Amino acid sequence: MTSQAPTRAYRRLSVEERRSQLLDAALSLFAVRAPEEVSLDDVAETAGVSRPLVYRYFPGGKQQLYEAALRSAADELEHCFAEPPEGPLTLRLSNALDRYLAFVDQHDAGFSALLQGGSVIETSRTTAIVDGVRRAAAEHILTHLEVAEPGPRLRMTVRMWITAVEAASLIWLDEEKEPPLDELRDWLVEQFVACLVATAGRDAQSASVVTAALAMESADGPMGALARRVLPVVSGAAHLL
Amino acid sequence: MTSQAPTRAYRRLSVEERRSQLLDAALSLFAVRAPEEVSLDDVAETAGVSRPLVYRYFPGGKQQLYEAALRSAADELEHCFAEPPEGPLTLRLSNALDRYLAFVDQHDAGFSALLQGGSVIETSRTTAIVDGVRRAAAEHILTHLEVAEPGPRLRMTVRMWITAVEAASLIWLDEEKEPPLDELRDWLVEQFVACLVATAGRDAQSASVVTAALAMESADGPMGALARRVLPVVSGAAHLL
Repeated sequence: MTSQAPTRAYRRLSVEERRSQLLDAALSLFAVRAPEEVSLDDVAETAGVSRPLVYRYFPGGKQQLYEAALRSAADELEHCFAEPPEGPLTLRLSNALDRYLAFVDQHDAGFSALLQGGSVIETSRTTAIVDGVRRAAAEHILTHLEVAEPGPRLRMTVRMWITAVEAASLIWLDEEKEPPLDELRDWLVEQFVACLVATAGRDAQSASVVTAALAMESADGPMGALARRVLPVVSGAAHLL
Repeated sequence: MTSQAPTRAYRRLSVEERRSQLLDAALSLFAVRAPEEVSLDDVAETAGVSRPLVYRYFPGGKQQLYEAALRSAADELEHCFAEPPEGPLTLRLSNALDRYLAFVDQHDAGFSALLQGGSVIETSRTTAIVDGVRRAAAEHILTHLEVAEPGPRLRMTVRMWITAVEAASLIWLDEEKEPPLDELRDWLVEQFVACLVATAGRDAQSASVVTAALAMESADGPMGALARRVLPVVSGAAHLL
């Protein structure tokens, strides 16, 4: 008896489908290896295509492929932030974080490799792509805060929190994905509110934002829970007043 | 009348002095240009020495010089964090931040170039140096919090704040060094306390840390001021309780 080797199901892909197939293959490799350890041969093998075909789509070689993969990941990330301007702010932030953290969870080490840099392939162009994602996230948040002209303190607070979320994501991947995603998400929302409240102590614009935001929250929502959990912790500090 | 060209004051430097002179020259160049735009010729010219001499000290060329400059900056940064374990925590944090922010102020664009990466010279080794600084900062803070075995939430909170401080420093450099340094420092301290208090709502260890820390603070100190400024902002949120 002769056993037949399985033949690859073959179908003609459009240019866009082929490009997207190659980017998926590249992203899956970047997810488990540092970019400098991924060759075009590897991408060709993973995608089940010839090396010349990879070069036809990415004539600039690895650098071009890496940038295209990063651009594709950045687009996907920016989609995470889109959220309708309805309901309590903490709910909107939760929804956006859910999508963002799902992306982190799915891309795993590739998220670190792509967004953290630390690669010989990194250039000012790739840095600009990553910074673009951060800026887009900040713009989305500021839009939800309904501030026409956000001042420097409010902007800095938002941007600091975004960096902190990135750091938390990398630590979370590093620490075997603990705590569970929904707990991490709720905690990140609480951190945002805490940072904003502290800034509100120094900045009238942030104070208005906090006042308006808290008015939309309810006792049985996340802010009610936070308030009830935090009050006992600070109740012993009456000597500060 | 003939005017004499000024002659370079010449003195024999020890190996250590020469090395340090070359690193200073490199750092001053990295402060105004991206690392990939700094050549060994530039370093030789800035230091007023011959190119072969630069190569004698850094036979590995630009990569070695860059790593040595980064290592030297990292050592200097780590020195900023050393603070005796005395007095209120906010005062200790203020003192460490004063030194750190003075470093940022002094090295300016070089701080971004060296610590932010985004350079073709960046490798896993330089990333490790920068991560080492972040880890050292976290260790210092955890020591001051007097926690023998910090749990994941407390560690994550501290590391998130350190990343946020880094982000704030880069934004501060970007925004023409506004607000003034002492205001930025006080605000960063307040952000730390706010993050820690929010975490304390979910984590018993962090709650003990907050309780112990607040007990050391006084009404006329920064925490008293923060409490009095924040209370009016949240006083309208009684519906959450």
